[in-house]
Amino acid sequence: TFTQGMQTVTLIPGDGIGPEISVAVMKIFEAAKAPIQWEERNVTAIKGPGGKWMIPPDAKESMDKNKIGLKGPLKTPIAAGHPSMNLLLRKTFDLYANVRPCVSIEGYKTPYTDVNLVTIRENTEGEYSGIEHVIVDGVVQSIKLITEQASQRIAEYAFEYARNNQRASVTAVHKANIMRMSDGLFLRKCREAAEKHRDVKFTEMYLDTVCLNMVQDPTQFDVLVMPNLYGDILSDLCAGLIGGLGVTPSGNIGANGVAIFESVHGTAPDIAGKDMANPTALLLSAVMMLRHMGLHGHAKKIEAACFDTIRDEKVRTQDLGGNSKCSEFTDAICQRVRDMD
Amino acid sequence: TFTQGMQTVTLIPGDGIGPEISVAVMKIFEAAKAPIQWEERNVTAIKGPGGKWMIPPDAKESMDKNKIGLKGPLKTPIAAGHPSMNLLLRKTFDLYANVRPCVSIEGYKTPYTDVNLVTIRENTEGEYSGIEHVIVDGVVQSIKLITEQASQRIAEYAFEYARNNQRASVTAVHKANIMRMSDGLFLRKCREAAEKHRDVKFTEMYLDTVCLNMVQDPTQFDVLVMPNLYGDILSDLCAGLIGGLGVTPSGNIGANGVAIFESVHGTAPDIAGKDMANPTALLLSAVMMLRHMGLHGHAKKIEAACFDTIRDEKVRTQDLGGNSKCSEFTDAICQRVRDMD
Ligand SMILES: CC(C)[C@H](C(=O)O)[C@@H](O)C(=O)O
Ligand SMILES: CC(C)[C@H](C(=O)O)[C@@H](O)C(=O)O
Repeated sequence: TFTQGMQTVTLIPGDGIGPEISVAVMKIFEAAKAPIQWEERNVTAIKGPGGKWMIPPDAKESMDKNKIGLKGPLKTPIAAGHPSMNLLLRKTFDLYANVRPCVSIEGYKTPYTDVNLVTIRENTEGEYSGIEHVIVDGVVQSIKLITEQASQRIAEYAFEYARNNQRASVTAVHKANIMRMSDGLFLRKCREAAEKHRDVKFTEMYLDTVCLNMVQDPTQFDVLVMPNLYGDILSDLCAGLIGGLGVTPSGNIGANGVAIFESVHGTAPDIAGKDMANPTALLLSAVMMLRHMGLHGHAKKIEAACFDTIRDEKVRTQDLGGNSKCSEFTDAICQRVRDMD
Repeated sequence: TFTQGMQTVTLIPGDGIGPEISVAVMKIFEAAKAPIQWEERNVTAIKGPGGKWMIPPDAKESMDKNKIGLKGPLKTPIAAGHPSMNLLLRKTFDLYANVRPCVSIEGYKTPYTDVNLVTIRENTEGEYSGIEHVIVDGVVQSIKLITEQASQRIAEYAFEYARNNQRASVTAVHKANIMRMSDGLFLRKCREAAEKHRDVKFTEMYLDTVCLNMVQDPTQFDVLVMPNLYGDILSDLCAGLIGGLGVTPSGNIGANGVAIFESVHGTAPDIAGKDMANPTALLLSAVMMLRHMGLHGHAKKIEAACFDTIRDEKVRTQDLGGNSKCSEFTDAICQRVRDMD
């Protein structure tokens, strides 16, 4: 049923706690009267013609039509040769930018305060090329592939992001002292993008130095842009600074508005179905999605209700140090959203 | 002049603050009556026959003879094509294990307490192979090389280290979910070594997960073993947890007792020659060296004097929050060493 003024989003609830945190997000969106209707799809990799792994056609069609998706956690396939669905989704829709804002949550104590940074990870190539060979017995090579096109695209994206989000600086993270040609190319493209965006401050830093400085004083960083593997590492490190993957949103952005927002924590099978999960990461990812769609008012309202609920301490899930159920936490956020009207 | 019972060590003072912190270490060793005599050598890469970069013959000969070296910081060459001397030294002497203990320093406040772990980094291959190509215009590949032999050697080393240093567990750090063949080989060798050392607990963890867990609770880790680049990153991250490279020792270990111990901080040209540098990292590296040489009594004494001086707070260099000169800090440690007799 098509409702006037509504936008349709593909919802991939995922495995384990995925369905229950998806329900939580839908409830909160309804309370906030967010003009979103959901098209639910399940994804399990299937073998297409020629033996290539692909996502199920009905999920693909839904995303092709809606362009925007929200996704819960998917269990990692154990069978050898079975692809990671997360990687397959990034690839299928050419979601080249992985964006993770890491912002300290007031009232939720970690060793750090005032963290406010964004990691922007190249999401399509680098160490994730999947190209590996046995050279001779006992000697293996993996190929890290860096292209001018993908480097330029992500560098441009980082500066555009900084500009559009009132962020003052971009740091390119690299090991061009070691991988002079590949990281060298990546770095060159960042420098070129910096030349074009002189309103944003540009710095470059070795990955090892970033890690060291990050744990000593994360407040010195703003937007960071980097190749695929470095982004995998740094985004998790930064999530750790503010409380972990349970509270960190994530977006995978492609061309022409295509994007999938997702919580990047696991499926937590041990607590699945027990009404104990924390929906914050998926909710904040959905808030990123709203901003991506230009629905800033709804985004602000839901985000504030979520942070207020956590700050208030009265209703928190166990992983946040409380003893409330997922549904109670969800209801508390809904109540706050309604109170704002 | 050869002195009875003395062992000779090659000393590479290095650039910037290198000479003054080397003097500090020599003074403290003298106060502790450590049976070491120093053979000083300078190193700058030179071009050998065939255009290959090499370390100067007199430095090479000294190391070949003494087997053991202590090294201050070296400035990174700026000229393209000029090799990193640090990498050249590791390569020349096949120093395959980079060992960095990270232990919280009592009285020196950071966001973490009770950190007590060791990173063991494969030091010869992986992403540091130096093999890179332009495939076509705008497409570059870097080759990560993992061999059975080097993986086995470092895995064995990690378990031997754990056993010899009364450490309970070894964690293999990898991304075998992405680099299935290369990191897969590395991981397999770690598992095989674990089978042979059943007295040491073995776990495996993704690099991204290690980074996240590390900043949330570093006390869960003990010995960590990993390929080259991951070690570069993690060792700096861990140094950050306990106060940075100015207080973190490091050893590069090869076969048959060959080893170079070094401080891994920079040359700090801004304060060089001003008697302001902190000699702690080089001193603690020299303490690692003493242990490597079996001189445990001297190691213990010097280490205790260093930590006592820092804990006492009265005489600290500026980077440690004090206002004492390098020479004053050094004298304070010498005094404590003498008081122990
Ligand atoms: C699930 C895994 C393949 C993935 C990665 O390595 O990129 C994950 O760690 C992430 O960061 O999204
Ligand atoms: C100086 C540099 C080449 C080196 C590296 O990348 O290995 C350094 O970061 C280190 O950890 O010793």
